[in-house]
Amino acid sequence: MSGYRFYERASRAYYSNPRLYQLLVVCSVSGGGLLAISDQNSPIRSAFADAGYNADIKKKKVVVLGTGWAGTSFLKNLKDPSYDVKIVSPRNYFAFTPLLPSVTNGTVESRSIVEPIRSIVRKKKFDVYFKEAECYKIDTENRKVYCRSTQQNNLGGVEEFTVDYDYLVIAMGARSNTFNTPGVVEHAHFLKEVEDAQRIRRTVIDCFERASLPSVSEEEKKRILHFVVVGGGPTGVEFAAELHDFVNEDLAKLYPKLKEHVRITLLEAGDHILNMFDKRITVFAEEKFARDGIDVKVGSMVTKVAEKEICTKERSTGQTVSIPYGMVVWSTGIGTRPVVMDFMKQIGQTNRRVLATDEWLRVEGCDNIYALGDCATINQRKVMEDISAIFSKADKNNTGHLKVDDFKEVIKDICERYPQVEIHLKKKQLKNFLQLLKNSDANDELNIEKFKLALSEVDTQMKNLPATAQVAAQQGTYLADCFNRMELCEKYPEGPLRFRGTGRHRFRPFRYKHLGQFAPLGGEQTAAQLPGDWVSIGHSSQWLWYSVYASKQVSWRTRYLVVSDWGRRFVFGRDSSRI
Amino acid sequence: MSGYRFYERASRAYYSNPRLYQLLVVCSVSGGGLLAISDQNSPIRSAFADAGYNADIKKKKVVVLGTGWAGTSFLKNLKDPSYDVKIVSPRNYFAFTPLLPSVTNGTVESRSIVEPIRSIVRKKKFDVYFKEAECYKIDTENRKVYCRSTQQNNLGGVEEFTVDYDYLVIAMGARSNTFNTPGVVEHAHFLKEVEDAQRIRRTVIDCFERASLPSVSEEEKKRILHFVVVGGGPTGVEFAAELHDFVNEDLAKLYPKLKEHVRITLLEAGDHILNMFDKRITVFAEEKFARDGIDVKVGSMVTKVAEKEICTKERSTGQTVSIPYGMVVWSTGIGTRPVVMDFMKQIGQTNRRVLATDEWLRVEGCDNIYALGDCATINQRKVMEDISAIFSKADKNNTGHLKVDDFKEVIKDICERYPQVEIHLKKKQLKNFLQLLKNSDANDELNIEKFKLALSEVDTQMKNLPATAQVAAQQGTYLADCFNRMELCEKYPEGPLRFRGTGRHRFRPFRYKHLGQFAPLGGEQTAAQLPGDWVSIGHSSQWLWYSVYASKQVSWRTRYLVVSDWGRRFVFGRDSSRI
Repeated sequence: MSGYRFYERASRAYYSNPRLYQLLVVCSVSGGGLLAISDQNSPIRSAFADAGYNADIKKKKVVVLGTGWAGTSFLKNLKDPSYDVKIVSPRNYFAFTPLLPSVTNGTVESRSIVEPIRSIVRKKKFDVYFKEAECYKIDTENRKVYCRSTQQNNLGGVEEFTVDYDYLVIAMGARSNTFNTPGVVEHAHFLKEVEDAQRIRRTVIDCFERASLPSVSEEEKKRILHFVVVGGGPTGVEFAAELHDFVNEDLAKLYPKLKEHVRITLLEAGDHILNMFDKRITVFAEEKFARDGIDVKVGSMVTKVAEKEICTKERSTGQTVSIPYGMVVWSTGIGTRPVVMDFMKQIGQTNRRVLATDEWLRVEGCDNIYALGDCATINQRKVMEDISAIFSKADKNNTGHLKVDDFKEVIKDICERYPQVEIHLKKKQLKNFLQLLKNSDANDELNIEKFKLALSEVDTQMKNLPATAQVAAQQGTYLADCFNRMELCEKYPEGPLRFRGTGRHRFRPFRYKHLGQFAPLGGEQTAAQLPGDWVSIGHSSQWLWYSVYASKQVSWRTRYLVVSDWGRRFVFGRDSSRI
Repeated sequence: MSGYRFYERASRAYYSNPRLYQLLVVCSVSGGGLLAISDQNSPIRSAFADAGYNADIKKKKVVVLGTGWAGTSFLKNLKDPSYDVKIVSPRNYFAFTPLLPSVTNGTVESRSIVEPIRSIVRKKKFDVYFKEAECYKIDTENRKVYCRSTQQNNLGGVEEFTVDYDYLVIAMGARSNTFNTPGVVEHAHFLKEVEDAQRIRRTVIDCFERASLPSVSEEEKKRILHFVVVGGGPTGVEFAAELHDFVNEDLAKLYPKLKEHVRITLLEAGDHILNMFDKRITVFAEEKFARDGIDVKVGSMVTKVAEKEICTKERSTGQTVSIPYGMVVWSTGIGTRPVVMDFMKQIGQTNRRVLATDEWLRVEGCDNIYALGDCATINQRKVMEDISAIFSKADKNNTGHLKVDDFKEVIKDICERYPQVEIHLKKKQLKNFLQLLKNSDANDELNIEKFKLALSEVDTQMKNLPATAQVAAQQGTYLADCFNRMELCEKYPEGPLRFRGTGRHRFRPFRYKHLGQFAPLGGEQTAAQLPGDWVSIGHSSQWLWYSVYASKQVSWRTRYLVVSDWGRRFVFGRDSSRI
């Protein structure tokens, strides 16, 4: 598309200067792009648009709530033009959130990681409508969502409206979790949205400028230049590392007298930072931070954030400590948004913390509502719940006794339906399911009790998926794929056997494929944990990080901008203007 | 310096990878830059710094208020290390304001036109201190300025302090002038600061998003998408043109159904837009805007801005008209800041609208206070005020009668002291001053009355300098030059004769050199009025505009960013994410 736009602009410029037209044609032909010099109302484009309009009446209404990783990946991959798609989100853009810590200090500009959702969906061959609003209520009975505009300016009163749906895709993400710690909302900065990152950037500069004023005492300087990061997860660690680089590479030169006063503290309630990573990475990170002078305090639980100090309870001593600070960044995990909470109450999911879906990302209890990304978790079905049904399915003749080989027919379905089975096999280093059954008994025949025994440990392998961009993006792609083949799979179901019912499931359940995870540690060093527990730490991983993050950008525009930002930082450093 | 930083970064990267060190040496030697690979504590740098510190006691204290065009250009050109310089400004950066209209719609990013003042003055060989604060009072008696921090966050109470000065340079700029029109401050956007431009950009997107909501009526859509620009000066005209381009080149594609509703109106109280330009430019601009569909209303005086409508009085009909709008941008001229007003009262300049300085930029009535840029005007001395003194100076023997040739000795001084003389000569197409005297009388002898008659029309040529970046920058350079040669010129004054006193003025008075002015009109067309009334309109001027604006950037970083922003816009268009 960028190529098309380039040609279009070029053509406009060249048309106004006819003498150069010849050159344009030569360039275009040699580049194989002559067809691209057509204006927007070309017959090809109009044909698609017309088809879209005429078919409006029969189209199924799909409403997508949210333009984050899950929603955008769903929209990007949705190809079936037989849907009428409406998007509702308070943000009219998609943000590449893994680069937010880089935005907090200007390694990357905020504009470089966002892409308007309209320009993402504009490339569709069918019409997609976007409404900048937040959904505040989901009415499952009438299949409606209630929305209102989030704008706060002089454009007039609050706009409210409803949107009807046939299918609802909830991809609203989560909010920062304060664990009800007093003062967090008032005094701490979160790091979830682009605006948060911009605000943090301004506040860091504010702290340095304020500490430069002649009326500020030495003690006060130390307080103002004490940056506290709460939460030792990947975001908190990356932010602390980036801030350290910013201070040492750029600010130290502009504020030479303040460098000695700067202190960065990372508070973690657990025993180690980066505890979801391999032990080697944790150790490396803790050692590097110690060398860099970043103060990592583990076993430190924040109890209160006041205007100028943060109170923690130290697990080792049981004492309450009060630490003066200049800025606090709160990055301890995510919580459920109020509207999702309300929705959960409405559909009877009252005793859960997060919205539960089945393995096909359908909200439990709602056939036509899907939830993906950080706002939901998959409630993986236990093998033990269905164990009798599975046994009966294999036991076609209802004998109560089965040879191990009799299971052959249903093995594939079992493995597909219950992903924990495969994880268990891998862990036990078993070649296949039959071995698991055989291992349990030398005897080749199983009854229901022995079958239960063989599978008894399988369910312990069940784990919730992490709340990462990677999971959300894969879920979006998966769901779009299901929507694309909805009609086909209705006729020819491709999923596993329904053990409790008849026939097969329409689709294969969602299966997450972990591609690895990065933890940038500053100083052009990154820790990478790749599939197969392959760990790489150092400068080479930083280059891997650069290439992966560049390749994962949503558009050529953001890719170009992000890469040129990196280059710009390398040559000119980061900007410290307070804007 | 950017070269130095590049090497420094490169050296850091290469040191950690010793195998590449050889390559670095080769590159550096071939580039002649080996010396650049030294760290910040190199002996050369330290020597300067030490010299600075030791000499602190005798140093004259210079306080600069403001980091706009005037202040920054003064600081950039100040080279004499015998001053102790302190800068006080609420903005810790310099902004390239002529590109603000481009920032309002993302042709150029806001970050690309700002440069931290600390990084500008860091290149000095002496210490310059910056304080992010606003000056709220000038105490001329005790030679002190009272300052306070402008930060509004949780960093603690209001910081107040005073700064002593020996020389004070007031370069605080001006504020937008509302002419006390009710509702302007509450409902209109100004376009003076970077934050204003960012806010306008967000509001334009807000208008489009709001108009896209299903609950908004057709009439309301028209109102929301009506953009009103008040003031037909270069800023207002450029903003209207840029907005038109943004809507037509970028937003029309993303909001195809809204394009027909968009309306841009330019209100001008005078008879024509761009009335400070050549008539040809005005006509071209008005015709181009008419073709583009930008509604130019001349003779339209805004009387009130309400929440959703703007009221104007039409000069032609005398009627009051009320126009519904979505966004108003107010760009009608500048007014004096309250702190400058207070200062004027204090020094007795009570019956003036703007702070007056003499031709050496010294505030009238204050020997050690200078004012430059938009906050002051030069109160050009009239020839007629000094006419007797001039005559006496030439009439060495006190005869009361002088031959024209007797003036030869003082001609240079007269022309230097009273710039209006040269303008008058040029206008009358006279070769030199003697001709002016000769013209007045065939007789070769003059008495005081005839001399007065000859010069009687000269003072009508006096004009205030326009409030432009060009004037401010030239004044800053001029004043820095004076400061650099203060001691030298004290001994060997280089200015014109003091007609009313004895001896000579220390410095030549400030003389503005007009280098031309641009008025970008959108669609890659710019009107340029160059010295000698040379007018150029069209695409070629646009390229001239690009090159001038690129070359005038304050640093290589901003130059690179601005140019790459232009390129990015050409290829990818402007971003419409609401951040």
